[in-house]
Amino acid sequence: MIKYNLKSVTAFAPATCANIAVGFDILGFAIDSVGDFVTLTKREDQKIIIEQIEGINNLPYDILKNTASVVIKKLCDDLQLNTGFNIRLKKGIALGSGMGGSSASSVAALVALNQFLLNPLTLNELAYYALFGEEIACGQRHADNIVPCLFGGMQLILSSNPIENILLPAPNIFCVLIHPHLRLDTKDARDILSKEISLKQHIQQSANLAGFITGIYKKDSNLLKKYTQDIIIEPQRAKLVPGFYKVKDVALQSGAIVASFSGSGPSLFALSDTKNNAEIIADKMQQEFMKYNIHSDFWITGLNSKGAHVTEIYEG
Amino acid sequence: MIKYNLKSVTAFAPATCANIAVGFDILGFAIDSVGDFVTLTKREDQKIIIEQIEGINNLPYDILKNTASVVIKKLCDDLQLNTGFNIRLKKGIALGSGMGGSSASSVAALVALNQFLLNPLTLNELAYYALFGEEIACGQRHADNIVPCLFGGMQLILSSNPIENILLPAPNIFCVLIHPHLRLDTKDARDILSKEISLKQHIQQSANLAGFITGIYKKDSNLLKKYTQDIIIEPQRAKLVPGFYKVKDVALQSGAIVASFSGSGPSLFALSDTKNNAEIIADKMQQEFMKYNIHSDFWITGLNSKGAHVTEIYEG
Repeated sequence: MIKYNLKSVTAFAPATCANIAVGFDILGFAIDSVGDFVTLTKREDQKIIIEQIEGINNLPYDILKNTASVVIKKLCDDLQLNTGFNIRLKKGIALGSGMGGSSASSVAALVALNQFLLNPLTLNELAYYALFGEEIACGQRHADNIVPCLFGGMQLILSSNPIENILLPAPNIFCVLIHPHLRLDTKDARDILSKEISLKQHIQQSANLAGFITGIYKKDSNLLKKYTQDIIIEPQRAKLVPGFYKVKDVALQSGAIVASFSGSGPSLFALSDTKNNAEIIADKMQQEFMKYNIHSDFWITGLNSKGAHVTEIYEG
Repeated sequence: MIKYNLKSVTAFAPATCANIAVGFDILGFAIDSVGDFVTLTKREDQKIIIEQIEGINNLPYDILKNTASVVIKKLCDDLQLNTGFNIRLKKGIALGSGMGGSSASSVAALVALNQFLLNPLTLNELAYYALFGEEIACGQRHADNIVPCLFGGMQLILSSNPIENILLPAPNIFCVLIHPHLRLDTKDARDILSKEISLKQHIQQSANLAGFITGIYKKDSNLLKKYTQDIIIEPQRAKLVPGFYKVKDVALQSGAIVASFSGSGPSLFALSDTKNNAEIIADKMQQEFMKYNIHSDFWITGLNSKGAHVTEIYEG
């Protein structure tokens, strides 16, 4: 039942950077300067309709194929709601950018729906529903975008079924997120990954992960710099983005603590101690991409951004 | 040059529990109630001789095969010392027990030798030499016994070449270390391990490791209980120890936070919140081993034991 007489609710959900080099499928953080808005408007019938999609072409209006509508439908069905919704999506996140666009749409939709119900669902319950959107988008219910998108900040996802996550005490450093104008579907970027790794690689990547988590808790940027290295996934995906290693290197040479793919790419993230340095890094990365005739956008953000939230409510 | 007029030095090095379930080759802690003593006595010539080995039969007197003499010879050669030593070993750690016996002998020998020189070598430098002992003992220079043995406490080994380690803030809990009277050579226990693992296993074990490290920093024993699970190595080695899963289960049923192999086994460790509970756990594990007609010894210790140290100095 809709318990409150609302006409429409708009929610914002941030872009997210998943993996953070050492935590494939288990680490991610939210970006506060870019994201998706979803507006739900109550209908008199019980239909769910995608009314408008702004900011991106080629996103499906078929409600069984769009992550926002899929999760709304699933939650409406499970709660046996006798209400329908028009959905308006305002995408700030490009398709196939590695910035958690599919998650942001489903999370924003769920947060808006939860507001209609006076927020009976916990964030963990919303995360459970958002995973159905990920399944539609890339074939797997991975939670490394969903969780930071919903909860904000830097998140360790210990389990995705059931969702169990821990907010990590991220340092006050700055993230450059740069999006080269290429499209890389998460499903494709997952399909190229080898299903097996060597025990030796596992040991080394485990040490890197442990160095990262320890660096986070000790607030030791030397540890972060030394151990936030992906020896498993990044080498397999680098070939998908022209100039990847050059752009990464230019970030590190310009003082970045770490640089790697954001999620499955093609976007990269880089971390820096100061905002000023982050601006220099972003500029250099963008120039480097231009050597490959690739245009890009970038954002500079803290690591302690808040998660998805309601931005507008209309009664009526 | 021997810079001080000493006749003999004795050093103690503790037993160690490597891996801690989730950190194959990268985690370990020291045990304060058991270990090896090594006495070095200066010789007038430049020979290195193993004079006596107490507490264990079958350890080689050949100085190229015994870990204590191998590392002494290596360090003497590198420093071009014009002194020889008689070595006496008093082994408190059984051979092939999974309690870091080979490390303890080489570490105690190196700490004693360093004392002769007025301690010019750092612990990291001693660790470098101790790795040569590991190579003799099991064919690989892994540092997960060496580092906690030298430094004490619970250690994260981020790199073994060069040695880089971090002392973890281990909680004030108790460790049961139980040694069934079986012998399992580390080399054999390593040789049975699959050289490949699946990416899926890697992801799950990474989440477990991250949960463990986070649990340690947050002092959250629920996290430790839930995530200190080895899904990669333990299942492959369990078959080497009759009753392994029964003994592990009885520990968990008796309130252990975690139980798994100590190092490559056959010993097991279990962690408990209280000393009293640790005693109950140890007793139950011992009884369970007896159902398989396997006798055992056990020790109960804290996790913040100190590392190797000099115990006696004779001038003359």
